[in-house]
Amino acid sequence: MKTVIKNAKLITMENDHRIIENGAIAFENGKITYVGENIDDPTTYDEVYDAKGNYVLPGLVNTHGHIAMSLLRGYADDLPLQQWLETKMWPLEGQYTKEHTKWGSYLSIIEMLKTGTTTFVDMYDNMDVVASAVDQSGIRAKLCRGMIGLASDEVQMQKIEEATAFVQDWEGKANGRITTMMSPHSPYTCPPAFIEKVVEKAKLLNVPIHTHMSETLFEVELNVKEYGQRPVAHLEKLGVFDCPALVAHGVHVSDEELDILAKHDVRVSHNVISNLKLASGVAPVQKMLEKGLLVSLGTDSSASNNNLDLFEELKQVALLHKGVHNDATLIPAKTALQMATVDGAKSLWLEEQTGSLEVGKEADIIVLNTNQVFFQPSHDPISHVVYSASGRDVKDVFVQGKHVVKNGECTTVDEEQVIFEANRMFKKFTL
Amino acid sequence: MKTVIKNAKLITMENDHRIIENGAIAFENGKITYVGENIDDPTTYDEVYDAKGNYVLPGLVNTHGHIAMSLLRGYADDLPLQQWLETKMWPLEGQYTKEHTKWGSYLSIIEMLKTGTTTFVDMYDNMDVVASAVDQSGIRAKLCRGMIGLASDEVQMQKIEEATAFVQDWEGKANGRITTMMSPHSPYTCPPAFIEKVVEKAKLLNVPIHTHMSETLFEVELNVKEYGQRPVAHLEKLGVFDCPALVAHGVHVSDEELDILAKHDVRVSHNVISNLKLASGVAPVQKMLEKGLLVSLGTDSSASNNNLDLFEELKQVALLHKGVHNDATLIPAKTALQMATVDGAKSLWLEEQTGSLEVGKEADIIVLNTNQVFFQPSHDPISHVVYSASGRDVKDVFVQGKHVVKNGECTTVDEEQVIFEANRMFKKFTL
Repeated sequence: MKTVIKNAKLITMENDHRIIENGAIAFENGKITYVGENIDDPTTYDEVYDAKGNYVLPGLVNTHGHIAMSLLRGYADDLPLQQWLETKMWPLEGQYTKEHTKWGSYLSIIEMLKTGTTTFVDMYDNMDVVASAVDQSGIRAKLCRGMIGLASDEVQMQKIEEATAFVQDWEGKANGRITTMMSPHSPYTCPPAFIEKVVEKAKLLNVPIHTHMSETLFEVELNVKEYGQRPVAHLEKLGVFDCPALVAHGVHVSDEELDILAKHDVRVSHNVISNLKLASGVAPVQKMLEKGLLVSLGTDSSASNNNLDLFEELKQVALLHKGVHNDATLIPAKTALQMATVDGAKSLWLEEQTGSLEVGKEADIIVLNTNQVFFQPSHDPISHVVYSASGRDVKDVFVQGKHVVKNGECTTVDEEQVIFEANRMFKKFTL
Repeated sequence: MKTVIKNAKLITMENDHRIIENGAIAFENGKITYVGENIDDPTTYDEVYDAKGNYVLPGLVNTHGHIAMSLLRGYADDLPLQQWLETKMWPLEGQYTKEHTKWGSYLSIIEMLKTGTTTFVDMYDNMDVVASAVDQSGIRAKLCRGMIGLASDEVQMQKIEEATAFVQDWEGKANGRITTMMSPHSPYTCPPAFIEKVVEKAKLLNVPIHTHMSETLFEVELNVKEYGQRPVAHLEKLGVFDCPALVAHGVHVSDEELDILAKHDVRVSHNVISNLKLASGVAPVQKMLEKGLLVSLGTDSSASNNNLDLFEELKQVALLHKGVHNDATLIPAKTALQMATVDGAKSLWLEEQTGSLEVGKEADIIVLNTNQVFFQPSHDPISHVVYSASGRDVKDVFVQGKHVVKNGECTTVDEEQVIFEANRMFKKFTL
């Protein structure tokens, strides 16, 4: 089927940040076949979508999270990190069943699709359940079974086997929408020998590694105390950066550590809102960019955010670094939007598939309802997307050409049922 | 006419932060007559609104801004403050006619109403035009003619006369929805003798004073250089704090200055997003609260924000201070919501009229569409309002009992016309 979106204000996010004021984009069999000036004759297309002058841009890319945790949204706020984890998150996560993971995942997937995220990273367990939800809902994801290594040898091996089986079962599935990684949870929750085993396995499987790193000062100090090195040198020594690697957070990283990360082309997922809410600090994003690191945006889970609206991260990354470094020129709107789109895709080694509107890429496309007061006067669409928009303005979403959100409604998942089930699962917890 | 909103989850924002899970609120002649458990028999009411379990809360209060500047939204971002002002804002503001002010004001008022703000502060010129838009649209506002005093004696006097006439003409108008203040623009744009004249006039008129104060380090240093004192002591000496006073920003204020402000019960409008975007810094809000100051939230203009959605300020104030002070317990959700509601009203000396859902207050009420994924699982409504909601979730808005936003549509202003006119006015600028 040949589809065209006409009368669109196209924000392509190609290298030159081309904006096409009155454009069209066409796709067939999931792939973009045309991006350019508006078309005069739509009769050669099977399906014609009139964007009515609305902004059309690539689907956003969320590079770190734990989607099943949406069941814990709003359950505990405004607490110090350790207390939050030990007295609130872990006791409830300990009660998670596959059913919790299932409905938590669907709740998050609907939220992401409806706010314009078409690709996300997830690190959790019961990943088969998450992958099935991805498959069924039509979203794109890079998934990994997060492994905490503080366990007996037997349990460690079991986790690695589980993670391996997950990669073998799901890599390239859902018509290529699912890709995978191997994921030691973090340097402070995984003994060095365990991390080395995971690295070995990732090399064999030929998949990247994803881990939390240097989210808090506490972790960094612990690493120095236990291993005599800061986390970056530690992970380098363990071979993590010999694989393609994506690290989440990177809040407390020194200049020397940034140099090591740059040398290995390690990708950083900046979780700006979660880092503020959990009082972890402000990552040195400007320095990362100056050193040529690829930086993208992650929401983390909705338990520490408390939503998965990447438009909020977009605005936050463009605001925060200006304010705390007293420089209004830092992270301009274009840079922020790049992080959430094309650089997000590159960070996941998915730049052939998604992240910009270019012929040959897959049709991951979102349409914003910009015929609203929030977007007036109508000029500089990149400014408006970054500083004025909300994920709630997303009207239509296509992933791999499939119309997964139609006029604000998710077409692949029953939202009412998911809301019902998410509340039912929450009530099952012993609080 | 007697109206009742039934089946509501009421967030009252009374002193005890009472939440009524299954409640009702009634009003008549613009005033709240009942807040409590759900009603069984709605037949005694002329109008029954079924909230269907949605959250119902007081309208939000925006305590600082310049609404006509919405025409400059997205025109200039990511620039240093002086360059932004001198090369971008002032040249266009110099071209403003009454017609620009009119359509810029309507654009902002629609935006505020649709995102749940029912009361706002505005400091600008051509205030008759702003006041007429307030009157006609049904919103509530505290308005003042902002006076820059760097001018000849004659022009200074003319401005004071204009501001005085505005107070005399509009105080208490629009059925009491309009109140007024006198407003010297700031210590760095007004000579001391001019400020003293304004103070004298404010006392005669018996209205509060509103001014910008200590937004940037530059201003503070200039004040010390020119007058040998920091801005707070300077304004105290000039008698500003002998009047009820509301200052905007207060980013760069020392502990001693906070003590002076507290002594005079000066109210502070915290403009958290604008301060970040213009790289002004982070105001010491936690210290302000510890010293007992009344702190409320302001968006500033949409030229430095770039929207007027107070839900974004709400979330930002609850996030930012945690992150930059490494303390996740700072500004918990309840405190943030207080700033945007009841403390906002107190900051404007309007606590008898608005800011909470209490019998006897005027019916400034908003309904959020919370039957969406963003609000699930359904518990702790205050957390969800602060951390998960967007202004786009506002469904219905009542001001003084009048239904000014009905199912997402503004009933008092023609949105399509305003969008058209705002764009037309923008095109009139010589850029």
